[in-house]
Amino acid sequence: MNAVITLSGGLDSATAGAVARSQGFELYALSFDYDQRHKNELLYAKRVGESLPVVDHKIIPLHLPLETSALTNRDIPIPDGDFTSTGIPITYVPGRNLIFLAIALSYAEDIGARDIFTGFNVVDYSGYPDCRPEFVEAVRTAANLGTKAGVEGEPFSIHTPLLRLSKGEIIRCGLSLGLDYALTWSCYKGSERACGRCDSCILRLEGFRQVGVSDPLEYEG
Amino acid sequence: MNAVITLSGGLDSATAGAVARSQGFELYALSFDYDQRHKNELLYAKRVGESLPVVDHKIIPLHLPLETSALTNRDIPIPDGDFTSTGIPITYVPGRNLIFLAIALSYAEDIGARDIFTGFNVVDYSGYPDCRPEFVEAVRTAANLGTKAGVEGEPFSIHTPLLRLSKGEIIRCGLSLGLDYALTWSCYKGSERACGRCDSCILRLEGFRQVGVSDPLEYEG
Repeated sequence: MNAVITLSGGLDSATAGAVARSQGFELYALSFDYDQRHKNELLYAKRVGESLPVVDHKIIPLHLPLETSALTNRDIPIPDGDFTSTGIPITYVPGRNLIFLAIALSYAEDIGARDIFTGFNVVDYSGYPDCRPEFVEAVRTAANLGTKAGVEGEPFSIHTPLLRLSKGEIIRCGLSLGLDYALTWSCYKGSERACGRCDSCILRLEGFRQVGVSDPLEYEG
Repeated sequence: MNAVITLSGGLDSATAGAVARSQGFELYALSFDYDQRHKNELLYAKRVGESLPVVDHKIIPLHLPLETSALTNRDIPIPDGDFTSTGIPITYVPGRNLIFLAIALSYAEDIGARDIFTGFNVVDYSGYPDCRPEFVEAVRTAANLGTKAGVEGEPFSIHTPLLRLSKGEIIRCGLSLGLDYALTWSCYKGSERACGRCDSCILRLEGFRQVGVSDPLEYEG
């Protein structure tokens, strides 16, 4: 059975891909170049796609006119991790997952697939509202109301196999499926080596600590 | 108050823009270049934007890998109008309005707008499932669950002022607001003159007949 997967190059979506493969899905991968600061994640996304492997992998350029996110506006610094604040972080990109899911659903309908896989999870870090299960459910509803596939009785499923896993559990899951996390990238800064200090690095490192294995990625300093 | 409007270059979205202006909104327009066969509609969208006028107008290039629609695959002919069939037409583009709305919502959040205007309508032609009110409502729900704006209690509104108007009523509305329909383009074929035979031309011409004025656009033959 064919499924579309959104691969960011990060640990979560790579693991979701490994889960989908373990369930027998043939994967059609999409990655998005939205001029993100850590655009080097797309190289990692390609490597992840090759290793799963996927049947096809498209990098979709998006020209989003967004000024307010630290991931798309280089004038806004990426903060070092601060999980004492409960608000939505400055790395939030307006509507990002709605756009990614919309394009994934469009592509899925076009190739006759009805399954979408994403690496969304909410346990360790629920600062991003567009990873929440109620959001995913609303997108699924919209897709089934607004597509030919949905109207004709072939509804879409949006799979979020990692939704309720901690970062440690995600890594343990991926390792058990033979995933090589050296192929993944998490750091929000686009430098040659991961910074080890941004929210994304901190969560990743903490996940590897929970599992008791060392992160194969190289870090600064 | 600021609002985002999606302008296709067609009659409906232009009229929705005129309605929004008449309600006092300052408009930020988005149009989408998805390599549609009738890409010349983007020139008309620009003219519509200038005439409303809008504060800003961005043409967003989209690189959607879609093969199954006659609007994006030049190997599939655009059929002459046939309203005896009740199915979803071959000009249906998978997930199109979900993608357009997702980007409009993202842009709106980024610029601090909470209102989106579209020209969707379902009276004359409900062949496209992604114009239906229940679809729009589901997208609005998804946006309000999956954005910082929604979570923080500043929900989005998606305005569809033409939803229940016939094509004739839409044209009458636009004319009463001083809209010049010579600035709009409806034909699905990308030729120099409108064909007068595709679904979109037939609906447009029928609308002008209902109003009893002649369409200012030039047609073939």
